[in-house]
Formats: sequence, structure tokens, C-alpha cells
Amino acid sequence: MKLIIGNKNYSSWSLRAWLACKQSGLSFQELTVPILGEDWEQQKRDSEELAPSSGKVPVLWDGDAVVWDSLAIIEYLADKVGRDRFWPKEDAARAMARSMVAEMHSSYLPLRRSCPMNVRARTRGASLSPEVRDDIVRILTLWAEARARFGQGGPFLFGTFCAADLIYAPVVSRFLTYGIPMPGFAQSYVEAVWEHEWMRQWFAAAEREDWVIEQFEVPVTQ
Amino acid sequence: MKLIIGNKNYSSWSLRAWLACKQSGLSFQELTVPILGEDWEQQKRDSEELAPSSGKVPVLWDGDAVVWDSLAIIEYLADKVGRDRFWPKEDAARAMARSMVAEMHSSYLPLRRSCPMNVRARTRGASLSPEVRDDIVRILTLWAEARARFGQGGPFLFGTFCAADLIYAPVVSRFLTYGIPMPGFAQSYVEAVWEHEWMRQWFAAAEREDWVIEQFEVPVTQ
Repeated sequence: MKLIIGNKNYSSWSLRAWLACKQSGLSFQELTVPILGEDWEQQKRDSEELAPSSGKVPVLWDGDAVVWDSLAIIEYLADKVGRDRFWPKEDAARAMARSMVAEMHSSYLPLRRSCPMNVRARTRGASLSPEVRDDIVRILTLWAEARARFGQGGPFLFGTFCAADLIYAPVVSRFLTYGIPMPGFAQSYVEAVWEHEWMRQWFAAAEREDWVIEQFEVPVTQ
Repeated sequence: MKLIIGNKNYSSWSLRAWLACKQSGLSFQELTVPILGEDWEQQKRDSEELAPSSGKVPVLWDGDAVVWDSLAIIEYLADKVGRDRFWPKEDAARAMARSMVAEMHSSYLPLRRSCPMNVRARTRGASLSPEVRDDIVRILTLWAEARARFGQGGPFLFGTFCAADLIYAPVVSRFLTYGIPMPGFAQSYVEAVWEHEWMRQWFAAAEREDWVIEQFEVPVTQ
């Protein structure tokens, strides 16, 4: 399998797909393309590997199968290695996990636009719009419910690390970057994700990247 | 199981979830809430059934499991009745189907905003922005590839009616409402979806609804 991803410091959907490949336990080759680089537009046109997605990352190639969205990548890998590696076993927990993941996939545009992922950066006192605050409250509410109802078996949303944690991992990074105040349970969860071995690997690689987008270094607040 | 949906004439995500329940073969009760009605804001606050989704439809209740997004509903039902009822069996086909479904779930905002679903309406000569045209071209390209590579077994995207057809069904309705010009293969596909028994049931119910949002009767072209 070959996974094509973007800049590790900035590409949140790439992080999700990369974590999904790690979670699968399968070996995979990763190829980073600098989607924020100057020659990206040209690369995109030239790249056969990015043709199925019209030039977007992430894309997973597996023989003649190609999957070009991080949620689709999770489900494709779950088909390969078994659902239980990605999703809670119990019906009510899995229903909630799948709903939370789908909500992240289609929603929270204010948060995603105003607080783009920037692994290396730290800021305090970011001024957040009411819409961004609504997104944050909704996410913290979902985290609280998952942890309270289904989180007994470990420090993650549904106990052990699962697809929901993969999908919300870039939110964890954003909350740290933009200094979002959090209740204690959320701080513990964020810490557990942040200290996860794969997250540390990703973030170490992001630190080594030398591409910097200046406008990403300060939060855009609407 | 109980499925809570919005107005059948207007609620595209409800159509997807309802088709998913039909596809599961399981019996289910449906409850339509007039999300475009005047007292909707109050109903939303009062409704325990809509609490998990913060007042959005569709929501599926199944015992103590609750699923509040149409893509999550598909996967939840596939867990219950078997994946093969919703997704192509062959890896490369399933990879493409899952990617197309995820892309519909997160993308095409220009098309979704400018051409909202309105089952009953027909218009010609809608003026479409370049962004909407890009979405239409992308969708037709994906349909063409799915039909050419994997559509031998029937008139639908991957042959027999599957999750990809469920998810693109509201696009079929939009293309008809806004008189989008299509190549022959797409016209045949649109016709196959439009004539599907479940679609006819849904549309007949939409015709009987008496709620009308005036602004939906003409295309908004920004």
C-alpha cells in the first residue's frame, strides 16, 4: 500500500489517513507531497497518483484499488483487517462513534477555517468568533458523552484508540495550538492523544519540515 | 427502528437515510418533522429524539443506539445486515464507491447551496456559477468512471443499487429540477434512479406535502 499525504505540519486530513494506516497494522509506504509548495499546481496536474482525487490528498493506493478520502480510507482498511480494530464492538458505542466521525467529516467549518492545523505553533488569547465557539462546545459535549458512557476501558473516547480518536486528532492539535480552555476531562483526553506514540512520530516529522506558511502562524478569527 | 426525517420535498440527507433503511430490508417506523415549518425552532428544543444531533435530521434510533448522520446510518445498517447489501463486493469497486460517497458527504457545497433539492419543481435555463459547473463536471466524471469500470451488472453506478446510488439520489433529483444538460449515459442512469420503486414512493409523498418554501421554487445562482 502507498499513502500519499500533504505537509505534516498543516494537512489535517492527511494525519487522519496516516493514523488509519498505522491503526490497520499493515505495512505501507508514505509519500509526502508539499501541497503548500509553490510548484504544487503543476505537480497536481502532472501526478497520475493524484488523478482520482483531482489533486487532493490523502490518497491510498492498494493494488488496483484507490481510495481518496480519509473516512473512506478508514472503512476500506477496516474491511481489510476487521472492523473491531477501528470501531467499538458494542452497538450503541459504535453508533455514537460512527456519528461523531461523520459529523467531523462534514461539519465544523468555522473551526476548520479559523483555526487551521499548525502542529508547530502555539498561541494564546486567540479571539474566536461565536460560530467557532459553538463548534468547540459541540465537540467538547460529544467528547464528554463518549468518555462518560463508553470510555471506561482506557483514556480515549471509547476506551481504546479507535477511528473516532483518529478523526478528532487534528482537533486535539488545534486546541493546543490556539490555547482553547478545556475542562479537566478534556485536558486528560487531549494529553492522552498527544502522547500517543504515532502522534509523537507525526509531530516530530512536522517539526523537521522546513516549509512555513506565514499566514498560518497567527490565528484567523472568523 | 425509528427514523426521524425532514420534509420529503426538501430534505436531501433525509432521503439518503430513508433509502438506506429501505436497502437494509429491516422494518422501520418513520417520523417526519417539518424542519422548514414555523414552529421548528421550538420543536427542536423540545425534542428528546433530536437531542443527540442538536436538532438535525436524519436520526435513526435502534434500541439504545442512536445514529445521527446519513453516512453513519448506512454503515450502522451495513453492520447489522451485512456489508454486501450496501457496498460492492470487489475491492477496487468498493474503494471507489466508498470514496465517491465520502466526497458527496463532505463536498460540492456550491451545488448544494445554489441548487437545493426541490423534488416537485422543474426549471430550465438556470444560470449556474463556474463553481457549480465544476461540481457538476466532477460528479458526471465520477459517474462515468463507475459505470464504465464497474457498472456491467445493472443500470446503477456499480451495477446493482448500492450505497453510492443512495448518496447521489438527491443529485439525480437536482439535475432534473434544474434541467442540467447531461450526456446519454448520465441520462440513462438518472432515469434508472428516478424510476426506482423507493424513489417513486418518496417523490409521491413529497408531492402530497403542502409545505412550500417560496425561495426554493427558483434556483439561487449567487
